[in-house]
Amino acid sequence: MEPKLEAADIGVIGLGVMGKNLALNIVDNGFSVAAFDLDKAKVEAAEQQAATEVAGRETRLFGVESLSQILASVKAPRVFLLSVPAGRAVDSICDALIEAGAIAEDIVIDTGNSLWTDTVAREKHYQGKLTFFSSAVSGGEVGARFGPSLMPSGDKKAWQRIEPIWTAIAAKVDADTGLPLERHQPGEVIEQGEACTAYIGPAGSGHYVKMVHNGIEYADMQLICETFHFMQTGLGMSTVQIAEVFERWNKGVLNSYLIEISAEVLRQVDPQTDKPLVDIILDKAGQKGTGLWTAVSSLQLGCPASTIAEAVYARSMSTQKTLRQQLATSLTGPAIAAVSAEEQQATIDALEAALYCAKVTAYAQGFQMIAMQAKEQQWELDYAAIARIWRAGCIIRAGFLRTISDAFEADAGIENLLQAEGFASKLNELQGQWRQVVAQAVVKGIPVPCISSALAYFDSLRCEVLPANLLQGQRDFFGSHTFERTDAPKGEFYHITWSESPRKLVKMS
Amino acid sequence: MEPKLEAADIGVIGLGVMGKNLALNIVDNGFSVAAFDLDKAKVEAAEQQAATEVAGRETRLFGVESLSQILASVKAPRVFLLSVPAGRAVDSICDALIEAGAIAEDIVIDTGNSLWTDTVAREKHYQGKLTFFSSAVSGGEVGARFGPSLMPSGDKKAWQRIEPIWTAIAAKVDADTGLPLERHQPGEVIEQGEACTAYIGPAGSGHYVKMVHNGIEYADMQLICETFHFMQTGLGMSTVQIAEVFERWNKGVLNSYLIEISAEVLRQVDPQTDKPLVDIILDKAGQKGTGLWTAVSSLQLGCPASTIAEAVYARSMSTQKTLRQQLATSLTGPAIAAVSAEEQQATIDALEAALYCAKVTAYAQGFQMIAMQAKEQQWELDYAAIARIWRAGCIIRAGFLRTISDAFEADAGIENLLQAEGFASKLNELQGQWRQVVAQAVVKGIPVPCISSALAYFDSLRCEVLPANLLQGQRDFFGSHTFERTDAPKGEFYHITWSESPRKLVKMS
Repeated sequence: MEPKLEAADIGVIGLGVMGKNLALNIVDNGFSVAAFDLDKAKVEAAEQQAATEVAGRETRLFGVESLSQILASVKAPRVFLLSVPAGRAVDSICDALIEAGAIAEDIVIDTGNSLWTDTVAREKHYQGKLTFFSSAVSGGEVGARFGPSLMPSGDKKAWQRIEPIWTAIAAKVDADTGLPLERHQPGEVIEQGEACTAYIGPAGSGHYVKMVHNGIEYADMQLICETFHFMQTGLGMSTVQIAEVFERWNKGVLNSYLIEISAEVLRQVDPQTDKPLVDIILDKAGQKGTGLWTAVSSLQLGCPASTIAEAVYARSMSTQKTLRQQLATSLTGPAIAAVSAEEQQATIDALEAALYCAKVTAYAQGFQMIAMQAKEQQWELDYAAIARIWRAGCIIRAGFLRTISDAFEADAGIENLLQAEGFASKLNELQGQWRQVVAQAVVKGIPVPCISSALAYFDSLRCEVLPANLLQGQRDFFGSHTFERTDAPKGEFYHITWSESPRKLVKMS
Repeated sequence: MEPKLEAADIGVIGLGVMGKNLALNIVDNGFSVAAFDLDKAKVEAAEQQAATEVAGRETRLFGVESLSQILASVKAPRVFLLSVPAGRAVDSICDALIEAGAIAEDIVIDTGNSLWTDTVAREKHYQGKLTFFSSAVSGGEVGARFGPSLMPSGDKKAWQRIEPIWTAIAAKVDADTGLPLERHQPGEVIEQGEACTAYIGPAGSGHYVKMVHNGIEYADMQLICETFHFMQTGLGMSTVQIAEVFERWNKGVLNSYLIEISAEVLRQVDPQTDKPLVDIILDKAGQKGTGLWTAVSSLQLGCPASTIAEAVYARSMSTQKTLRQQLATSLTGPAIAAVSAEEQQATIDALEAALYCAKVTAYAQGFQMIAMQAKEQQWELDYAAIARIWRAGCIIRAGFLRTISDAFEADAGIENLLQAEGFASKLNELQGQWRQVVAQAVVKGIPVPCISSALAYFDSLRCEVLPANLLQGQRDFFGSHTFERTDAPKGEFYHITWSESPRKLVKMS
């Protein structure tokens, strides 16, 4: 197809599965796309798919052969959606665009999983040469195709140019129910509903929010896996029985995409052996880095996001397969007794409560991280809007997010979700079952690192006094690190002269 | 005092509490020291203390007034011990030394808590200008004065020049018992015994090992605090009763410096109010960064050091005092019933077992981190020697380290300490009590984040099959991340075409 110079609404650079699907989604919504990839075959494949899917209508996606051509093919002010692997590829394309004639007013939107600090650095680096903008995308390939959750951040004027396209392609939720309005067919468009996108804030903030989204996703997935493991090992249930439980849970407070697909995965039969697929999948989990970034950021912020970190560690633990195989024979554990049908049902109910509570905890940690980082970076963020963006399109979408946006709408100043009355009362009510699950897992020898870490987090937050007083005493003893006194103004530091006799109290500052 | 040109065995730069004490320790051991600090008062204080402490003998510490003077005051090949805050100060001093006339053969030993990657970069940066060497120091101010644990790394030739001084000033252990030979008085020298120092490996390795030492220290301290919290809250014991328990534990498998000083801290009365000091110390724990670095490094390595990370998070949690005070009123918890004397004793015994098991776990995580990093950096390390260095002088010194060095001597190839028969059998034996502690804490609502995380780690390692199979199925479902099959060769990746009907299995690579 011939390039239609200056005709396209947007240029898409990078036609991997995410870039191609975003391009097709844009086309579905009535915008025209100039598409480029270094791999010519990918350009042709995208053109062909667009032509097939819109059969009978005008094709609005056309491939171009170079960056110069894509620059000549998009309406001014030009906007380019970049979908390339995070890291050096982003810089290479930006530099090449500048060399090919891009100007300061041209907007380049990085949609990859870039590290947020890289985004901040890039916006600064390209100032005066390009308008570097970023928009994190969640929802995997299906989301990209039929409605992702989009977290744009950067120059506000650039956002005005992009907003109509972003609003059109984003996932939509019903304004009344808050539930996703699903779209499954090429060409299908959903015009009503609230779009799962909103301007997040200054450069980097959108990618930071997306990073934390992924950290929560790690926790959410691991928590589900722990309930699966408990039902399988502790209750002796079959894969299909567990799938049924997940299907039931998906109709209650746990209603979410991840619960839904867990049931689907468990119901899947391996086409090769006819056994349950999950028994054939090797228990080594991969990771792409965003969970790790989230855990590292929480450590740097001093935000105790332990449930998220435990989920990252659980993936690392899964990769140590050979070591585990060996230790499975040398380390012993308790025998697991069979349970009655009644006991089984009670435990399944308790698992549902525990999963809910632990999940709230993971979200509380994630939202607190965002708030602490926003304070450090002086970003002004709308937390209710962030929760609303996650109601559809993204991997952690869940009915539950409405409760979070409601909580922030009721009080935008809460530091931690457990301050919200709705969550506090729910956790107060369900904690007995949560405790029962952890205690049983511990006694039976079933690892539930995230569910139990979340409970320790909850119990720590309930403690007006933690044993850090002894710890600070130890630190003063061996390193003169000083301590504050409960009966003196904060900011006054004291030390005991531990190696003198008699020991004296000294006010240090 | 007049500088004695070219007379000193070593120059000490930076006379804060650590630098001054290391200098005095060197003097005690018969070496002469030229001492410099930007703050003249500190130089004078060090001179005066040296003169007082060695009354009747020749003073072998003299102050100098500039870096040029210190360069003129040390015997060639010159060696300088640097004790300045980690970070830019290290570079500033090195640059200033070069400007003042230092040459490539001059050895500068960084003894601060530098980030190991900075050490690697510095060794490279100063090549041809200075011999940048590093030696991590553990033991706090008392250790520095009377025998620290020293972890030197870098140029092997430089080590030959330094070794006599390092061997002399390091803490010593009795070669037969492996127990510390303590030194408490200025002028006192211990000539027999094994020195707690050994060449660790190439640049940065010593600081890496010290960083992990500190990470283990974080875990060790937090674990002790959790048992304290349990006895106080769950068993209603007084501070003095708990001190007695720690004193008893210090005679058994838990024998260690940290248990010993915990008892001392708990016995301390506040000089101002006559109440137990621990009740007056504000429960906000500080941190200087090495714990955080350890947790970050474990995440980057993919080494599940969850117990260490939980200890870092516990410190962050302690600083959220205002939030905790507020949530203590809105979040409810279980009522804690009184326990019988018999039950109390059984629980105390179980706590001892749980603390031991969790501590082994933290060490297993730390040593595995070192091994994984060594593999990445191609360092050849002697793990038994590292355990031996920690037997005295450092904060985590404990009888227990002998079991670790024995384990590595028996089999230098173990990846994880739980592979060592001695630890495996002990944990197999004590795990019932460990489980009992965690289950009780969970039911009573007492947070034990590290003790419970360690148990989840232990139980995960015992699992030949973890639920990461479901997780990898979820990842393939929403992101086509593929999976390996249990019945196919490793390295072959498969995908299910989840959105097709019927779904097919595709071999991806």
